[in-house]
Amino acid sequence: MRSKKGDSRKTVTINLSEKKITINNINGISKFKGGRNLTSQLILREINPDVHYLSKHNNFYIATGLLSGTLCPNSGRCSFGAKSPLTGGIKEANVGGTLATYLGKMEVAFIKIVGKSDKENVIFIQESASDNNPDVKLFSVESISGADTYKTTDILQSEFGSDTSIVTIGPAGEKKYLSACICVTDIDGKPTRQAARGGLGTILGSKGIKAIVVKKPKKNLVNYMDKEKFIANARELTDILKKSESTAEALPYYGTIANMEAINEFGGLPTRNFSAGSFEGADKIGCEEMRKRIVERNAKPTHACMPGCIIKCSNTYNDKNGIEITGGFEYECIWALGANCGIDDLDYIAYMNRVCDELGIDCVEIGNTIAVIMESGYISFGDKEGAAKLLNEVRKDSPLGKIVASGCEIAGKIFGVERVPQVKGQGMAAYDPRAFKAMGATYTTSPMGADHTASFSSAYELYEIGKTVDPLDPKGKVDVSKELQQIVAFLDSTGLCVFVMFAALEDKRGLLPVLEMINARYGLNLNEKSVFDIGSKIIEIEKEFNLKCGLGEETNKIPEFFRQEKLDTHSSVFDVEKDELIRF
Amino acid sequence: MRSKKGDSRKTVTINLSEKKITINNINGISKFKGGRNLTSQLILREINPDVHYLSKHNNFYIATGLLSGTLCPNSGRCSFGAKSPLTGGIKEANVGGTLATYLGKMEVAFIKIVGKSDKENVIFIQESASDNNPDVKLFSVESISGADTYKTTDILQSEFGSDTSIVTIGPAGEKKYLSACICVTDIDGKPTRQAARGGLGTILGSKGIKAIVVKKPKKNLVNYMDKEKFIANARELTDILKKSESTAEALPYYGTIANMEAINEFGGLPTRNFSAGSFEGADKIGCEEMRKRIVERNAKPTHACMPGCIIKCSNTYNDKNGIEITGGFEYECIWALGANCGIDDLDYIAYMNRVCDELGIDCVEIGNTIAVIMESGYISFGDKEGAAKLLNEVRKDSPLGKIVASGCEIAGKIFGVERVPQVKGQGMAAYDPRAFKAMGATYTTSPMGADHTASFSSAYELYEIGKTVDPLDPKGKVDVSKELQQIVAFLDSTGLCVFVMFAALEDKRGLLPVLEMINARYGLNLNEKSVFDIGSKIIEIEKEFNLKCGLGEETNKIPEFFRQEKLDTHSSVFDVEKDELIRF
Repeated sequence: MRSKKGDSRKTVTINLSEKKITINNINGISKFKGGRNLTSQLILREINPDVHYLSKHNNFYIATGLLSGTLCPNSGRCSFGAKSPLTGGIKEANVGGTLATYLGKMEVAFIKIVGKSDKENVIFIQESASDNNPDVKLFSVESISGADTYKTTDILQSEFGSDTSIVTIGPAGEKKYLSACICVTDIDGKPTRQAARGGLGTILGSKGIKAIVVKKPKKNLVNYMDKEKFIANARELTDILKKSESTAEALPYYGTIANMEAINEFGGLPTRNFSAGSFEGADKIGCEEMRKRIVERNAKPTHACMPGCIIKCSNTYNDKNGIEITGGFEYECIWALGANCGIDDLDYIAYMNRVCDELGIDCVEIGNTIAVIMESGYISFGDKEGAAKLLNEVRKDSPLGKIVASGCEIAGKIFGVERVPQVKGQGMAAYDPRAFKAMGATYTTSPMGADHTASFSSAYELYEIGKTVDPLDPKGKVDVSKELQQIVAFLDSTGLCVFVMFAALEDKRGLLPVLEMINARYGLNLNEKSVFDIGSKIIEIEKEFNLKCGLGEETNKIPEFFRQEKLDTHSSVFDVEKDELIRF
Repeated sequence: MRSKKGDSRKTVTINLSEKKITINNINGISKFKGGRNLTSQLILREINPDVHYLSKHNNFYIATGLLSGTLCPNSGRCSFGAKSPLTGGIKEANVGGTLATYLGKMEVAFIKIVGKSDKENVIFIQESASDNNPDVKLFSVESISGADTYKTTDILQSEFGSDTSIVTIGPAGEKKYLSACICVTDIDGKPTRQAARGGLGTILGSKGIKAIVVKKPKKNLVNYMDKEKFIANARELTDILKKSESTAEALPYYGTIANMEAINEFGGLPTRNFSAGSFEGADKIGCEEMRKRIVERNAKPTHACMPGCIIKCSNTYNDKNGIEITGGFEYECIWALGANCGIDDLDYIAYMNRVCDELGIDCVEIGNTIAVIMESGYISFGDKEGAAKLLNEVRKDSPLGKIVASGCEIAGKIFGVERVPQVKGQGMAAYDPRAFKAMGATYTTSPMGADHTASFSSAYELYEIGKTVDPLDPKGKVDVSKELQQIVAFLDSTGLCVFVMFAALEDKRGLLPVLEMINARYGLNLNEKSVFDIGSKIIEIEKEFNLKCGLGEETNKIPEFFRQEKLDTHSSVFDVEKDELIRF
C-alpha cells in the first residue's frame, strides 16, 4: 500500500453571493497540502492581489492540517487565510480548539468562502447521515447580531448543541475593525482560542459570516494508507513531547507565561512601548504569581485547548471569588496588556483579556495600540483604568474605540507617535528585537508582518534548544530566522502546534515521526529535507503575493528607532544588516 | 558673458537641535537647480528613507524656483519637501504667494531645516544691512501657539510688519495630523495659499516650527549673466500668457472653477465619493454662480496670488453681507467639499474652505475623507451641517476630528469603507480617472500619490491644448501622463505656476522663453530637450527614494473599484494596462 499515493479529503466552497455550496474531492495542486500551505497557495492562485480587503473578491479560506483529525497528538490547529486588513498582504492565522479536529475527522481539507452576503449568516457543518461528504448549510440567527463572542457561543450552543466547535467573530469583526480576530471554542466550549493576528475577523464580517458551527462528528472518516506505521509514529511523537523539558514540564505547569521570567531577567521584555527591556512589575504578572492564583482560586493551571493535546499549556483563570474571568490567558496577552503598558495587576489584565476575547480583537495588537496611545500622553503608562476605558470605547464603537481597534500603526499616525513597534502594519510581540535579534529578523522578514510565531526563534536565542546562538550578535540572524520560519511554515501545514518544534529540536528524532505520519496517511515519501522544501516554498509563495500587493522586499524594515535607540538592559540597538533583511 | 556659467545663490541651514544657522554659497550638484529639482535631490541625498516621518532626521526643505525673484512673470512658486506623513514616500508641494519672490530677491536657493526643537519657534528672515547674505534668526512667539493660521498671521504681521511673507502651519500641523498643510500669505497678506498635499505641515510642526516670516527685501540681489536677453524672454513669456485663452481669459475671469462646467458636462466630475460622474448641483457651485456672487458682493473675481502674476486666477469671496469669508477659493476645494460630498451650497463650501485654511488642513484630502465617512453611513451625502460638524471636531482635536484630519485612506480603514479613492495613501483630485484616463494614469504613477497637478493632463484630455487625446481611450495614456509629468516637474523647478504649461502648449514658442531666461540668468545652454531631461531625472530620483521607502513600482495601483465599477456617465471603467502603470 505504501507505494500508492492517496488523498481522499474533501473541499467545501461556499459562494455567499449566489448562496451556493459545493463539495468536491480534493484535486490538482491542493492535494497532499494542508493548513498554511493550502491557504497561502489558494490566496496566491485565486485572489486578485489588487482587491481591497473588504472586496467580495477577497476570498476567505479555512484549512485543516495534513494530520488534523488523525491519531497524531496536538494536530488540531486550523489555518485561516485571506488578504489581510492590517498588513494589506497575505495572512495566515492558525488556531487551536476543536475546529480542525472535527473538520479533519470529516476529511475536510479546506473551506473556501467567496462572495458576500448582505445579511449575517451562520454556516453549519455536520457529518452526513447518507454519505461521506460533509453536510453544509447556511442559517440566519438574528439574536447573535452584535453579540459578543461568549454570548454568541452560548446562543449557538443552545441552538446547535454543546457538542459543537464554534467559530465566531465578535462585534469587532462585524464593525470591520482592522484588529478583529476569530475566536474558536476550546474543549470546554469556551471561545478562548484566537486566530488573532492580521484582522481576519473583519474578512468574515465583511462577507456576512458571524459564526461557523461544526457538529462533532460521530464517525472518523480519516483514511490511512498505512495505519500501523501511522500509529507507531504517533507514539514516537508522543514520546518526544513527553520527554522535552519545555513541552512536558514548563508549558504544562505554568502555561506560556513560563517564558516571562527568563525573558525579563535576560532584559528582553518589552516594557512601556518598547522603551525598556525589563519590567519592575514582572514578578506580579509572572508565572509563579499566576500559577499561585490559578491554583488558589480553583481554576485550571494545565489545560488542553484541543483534543489530543498532550502539552496542555492553556489554562483557566478565576477572580478572587472563584468566578472564571478568562481562559487561554497567555504570555503574549499578559505582556501586551501588562508590561508593555506598564500595568502590573494580573487580575486587571485578565479582565482586559476577557474584554478583548468578548469583542473579538487581537490582544497583542490592542496592547501595542494602547501603549502607543500612552506614549502620546493621552493616558499614562500604568494607567490601568485608562486602558480599560479605551477597551470600553471599542465596545461602544465610538470614534476613539474605532481608533483603538485599528491597531498600533494607525493609532500612531492619528496620535502623532514616532515610536510605533510594527512591521508591515502589524504590531510586534513580546520579544524586544534589540535583545533577540533573530526574533527581530523574523518580525522584519516574515510575510505576515511582525509575528513571533513565524519563527519562534526564542527556541535558540533564549532556551538554547538544539542550537545555541548569541541573541545579541547580529550576525547570521537572518539565516537562523529563515531556518526556523521554514520549519514553522511546514508545521503550520500539518495542524501541529508550534510547540512541537521545541520538543523536536532537542530530540535526535526531530520531525521524522511527523513526516512519517504524513507518509503513512497519504502514501508519500517525505524526508527531513522536505520540511525545508515545503517551508521555503510556502514562504516564497507568500512573498510573491505580498510583492503583487505592493509589499515588496523593501518593506522588510524595522522601525528606525530600534536602530537608533539603545535598549537599556544591553545598550544594544537592532543592527542586523539592512541588506540581509531585504534579500530574505 | 553668456559662455560663463554662474550661480550666486545662497543656501540656509537651520539646525534646530543645535540652534545653529549656517549660510553658504550654493555649491556642488545643487547649483543651477531650483524648486522640486532641489527638494527631491536633497531628500534622496540627505534623508535616510527608513526614518519615521516624525523623526528629527526627516529634514524639511524650502526651495525657490530657478526664476524666483527675477523679472520673469508668474515665477513665485515655492517648493516644500520632506518624507511625507501621508504617503510615506517623497513629497514636494509647491505654493504661490509672496514667499518665493521675497526669498528669490535675496538669492536664497533653499532653506534646509534639520533636527528638532522642543519648543515652538518662528524663523525670521530679512535682508542683511551689511552684506548680501540673508539675516536669519529664531524667535519664540508664545501667543501664536495653537492659534489658527489667520490669527497667527495677524499676530506676526503686527510683530514683524505687514511687509512680510508669512508661512504658517495651523493647529493641524502642531497636532501632527497627516493632512496638515502649510499656508503662505498672498499679496494681500492673507494666508490663502496652501502647499496642500501630503501632510507637510506636520513635518514643520514636528520640528517645532510654527511659522516662518520673511521680510520683503528692499534690494533685489538677483544676478543675471545676460539681463538684456532675460528681459526679452520675459516679454516673450508675458506675450504667450496674454495670448492664451486659458491664461488670458478663462482663468482670470472665473478662476480655476472655470473648469467645473466642462468637466461636469463631459461627465467626469467625481460626485458623492466617485459614485457618479456628474453632479446635479454643479450649476449652483459652478463658475457662473461663483462669479455672480463675487461681483455682487464686492469681492475680487480676479486676483493675483503672487507678485508678478499676470494670470490672476485667484479670488476673494464674501458672504451676503459683504464680509470676506475666504480667498483663493478654487475648483479643487469646491469640488472636494462640494460635489464629492453631494453639497451644493457655495457659501457653505466657502465657509468650510475657510475652516480648512484656518486649521491648516488640505481641503482636497479632507473633502475625500468626509465623502468616505459619508459613504460609511456615519453621515449622509449632502449633509452640509454634518460635514461642518466633522470639521469642527478637527478644531476640537477630538478622536473623531483626529480621524477626519488623517485623510481618506485611514478614515476608510477606520470606518470600514471599501471605496476609497486614493493612491499611495493620498486622496484623488477632481477628475474621475474612468473619464480622464491620462489623469488616472497620473494618479497611479506619480511619485507623489494621487495628484492632479503632477501632470495636469486635462490640458490634452479636456481642453485639447496642443494635442487632442480621447480621454476615454486607455491606450497611450501612460505615455501622455509621463510627457506631461516631465514638463510639470521641470516647471516645478523654475518657480513658474503650472498654468504656464497651458499657455506654452498652445504657442509655437512653447517653453523656449522660459529656457532662455534660465540660460540668461545662469549662463546655461538649455534647449527644449532639457525640459524632458530635467523632468525625467526629477521623477527618477523621486521613484528611487520611494522604492527605498518601500513604495516600489508595485504600488502604482489604482483602487480596484475603478476597474470594476462603471462610471455612470460613460459606462467606462479605468482600463489602462496594469503592467504599463507598473513599468512607468
